[in-house]
Amino acid sequence: MTHKFDVLGIGNAIVDILVQVEDDFLVDHDIPKGSMQLVDEETSEKLYDKLGSAIECSGGSAANTIAGLASMGSRAAYIGKTKNDQMGHVFDHDIKSLGIEYTTKKDESGASTARCLVMVSPDAERTMCTYLGACVNLMEADIDEAQVAGAFVTYMEGYLWDPENAKAAFRKAMTLAHKAGRKTSISLSDSFCVGRHKQEFLHLAEHEIDILFANEEELLMLYDTRDLNDAIKAVQQHCEVAAITRSAEGCIIVSAGDIITVKGNPVSDLVDTTGAGDMFAAGFLHGYTRGLDLGVCGRMGNLVASEVITHLGARPDIDLKEYIANKLYLT
Amino acid sequence: MTHKFDVLGIGNAIVDILVQVEDDFLVDHDIPKGSMQLVDEETSEKLYDKLGSAIECSGGSAANTIAGLASMGSRAAYIGKTKNDQMGHVFDHDIKSLGIEYTTKKDESGASTARCLVMVSPDAERTMCTYLGACVNLMEADIDEAQVAGAFVTYMEGYLWDPENAKAAFRKAMTLAHKAGRKTSISLSDSFCVGRHKQEFLHLAEHEIDILFANEEELLMLYDTRDLNDAIKAVQQHCEVAAITRSAEGCIIVSAGDIITVKGNPVSDLVDTTGAGDMFAAGFLHGYTRGLDLGVCGRMGNLVASEVITHLGARPDIDLKEYIANKLYLT
Repeated sequence: MTHKFDVLGIGNAIVDILVQVEDDFLVDHDIPKGSMQLVDEETSEKLYDKLGSAIECSGGSAANTIAGLASMGSRAAYIGKTKNDQMGHVFDHDIKSLGIEYTTKKDESGASTARCLVMVSPDAERTMCTYLGACVNLMEADIDEAQVAGAFVTYMEGYLWDPENAKAAFRKAMTLAHKAGRKTSISLSDSFCVGRHKQEFLHLAEHEIDILFANEEELLMLYDTRDLNDAIKAVQQHCEVAAITRSAEGCIIVSAGDIITVKGNPVSDLVDTTGAGDMFAAGFLHGYTRGLDLGVCGRMGNLVASEVITHLGARPDIDLKEYIANKLYLT
Repeated sequence: MTHKFDVLGIGNAIVDILVQVEDDFLVDHDIPKGSMQLVDEETSEKLYDKLGSAIECSGGSAANTIAGLASMGSRAAYIGKTKNDQMGHVFDHDIKSLGIEYTTKKDESGASTARCLVMVSPDAERTMCTYLGACVNLMEADIDEAQVAGAFVTYMEGYLWDPENAKAAFRKAMTLAHKAGRKTSISLSDSFCVGRHKQEFLHLAEHEIDILFANEEELLMLYDTRDLNDAIKAVQQHCEVAAITRSAEGCIIVSAGDIITVKGNPVSDLVDTTGAGDMFAAGFLHGYTRGLDLGVCGRMGNLVASEVITHLGARPDIDLKEYIANKLYLT
């Protein structure tokens, strides 16, 4: 069965506002370091007013993954909702400039394009406050059946479970993907997100998702355990493949017949961990959609994740195609 | 005579769109490398559509200088026109977050906030295409008399001579500054800009400007000579102080009694030359408004210029106060 796209991503279409902060700022504002919080527009504005000079760039978890995939040479499409405003225009440009098919209709009125205040601490950890804005208007009608049916993998972010309408879109996409004999995939996004939607995520893992992405913390939260081996055994019963990331430690790739431990790629100049999980998924899926061994997929994930954390921002700074070609069989 | 502000900057309030390009792109589009071109909105959009993923951040030549000054601890104010749109909001936030007084009324309708496509070549040289947008609506009424009278130096960018209305604003500011016994200063901005306004700039240098900033090329263009010594002699007759930048070679500071040559600050990791001239002016004026010797002012200019070219973007990445304190008497 041929496919037009290696991966279709569905997610919250967000413009990131990157700003450096001291840890005290987070403490003073009761924002748990490393978390992603949802905030309303007023709170987002108030926080922004207190923050220093910023840099704006396109973000959104699944959109970052899709951007990474396109940079490696995968054929990719994306679905996510913006408004027809300046930030929506920025998002649109950055996605399309990578050759990604992106046709989701923009809102002409209502909430503005989503933005995420990404606060980067001196130790490179990032803490996010997201105003979902137009994202909450993503709905079933925005899911393009031909795109889903034409994608080897449909990849979604757990964050998409936050806007109520998007859940229906998400479910429609999974149904269409399986109807077309394709694979579904989700990233659990962050442990706070898993906390918000644990029962539904468990149901998804058991019944709807073929390829699960999670970090250690998220997986432990999902299976309500502090023992990683227990969580691995549980996810092995649920998903065809689970890719569990462990920061500098690398990753563990779980499938029915195998549990593969892949060492991390050493990084000497850590700047900003934003996008590490997104880029891991990009590297992994690039290998997966090419039929590479799961261990190689894990190494590719580690490699591209280790690139994105050496600079500010959640998308690759370099041509990942060349990077992967140079690094994969040398490290 | 006490002053509320060390420097008041007046300029085109612009949001930069930073993007990496190959030199071929510039050749294919007939854009002279290293230049700043003015483009209309349609051309700006068409170019943007052809460019890759970008990063947005506040720019504008004089605004960058003022941001640099504030980062060093100078008391600063800024005048420049934006529209009340998302990019205007970004510009506003970034200026105010540095403690800079910025009260220029935003346009509620009409052209959008100015944007500049900053195309960075592999050799770190930047080429700019600017859509002036709302900047063209800066006018005399926007010049706050109290701000001008309260500023030790009123600093303007040559680019401000492009929007017709802004000239009147510019002239009003110079008149008010001298009436209050203050200093006026201008940066010639770029040699193409000097080419566009040579006669008027010559008149300004001779009659209106106390402190002139120019690079070698701009000064040669202004005095219509290929001999730097001739140009230096000419400017010495015109301005109280002229600070002539020479890229890696450093700068020459010309005053009535002296011509001081200051060596450049070595830079090993050149990334993006955007903002080098703006930051030189910031460093120089920070010293000047503190009554430091002109040679020291030149060294301070070189130092902060050498910081900004080691990363993408035209504004400092670090706290310049600490940087200056650590570097000035060690290099």
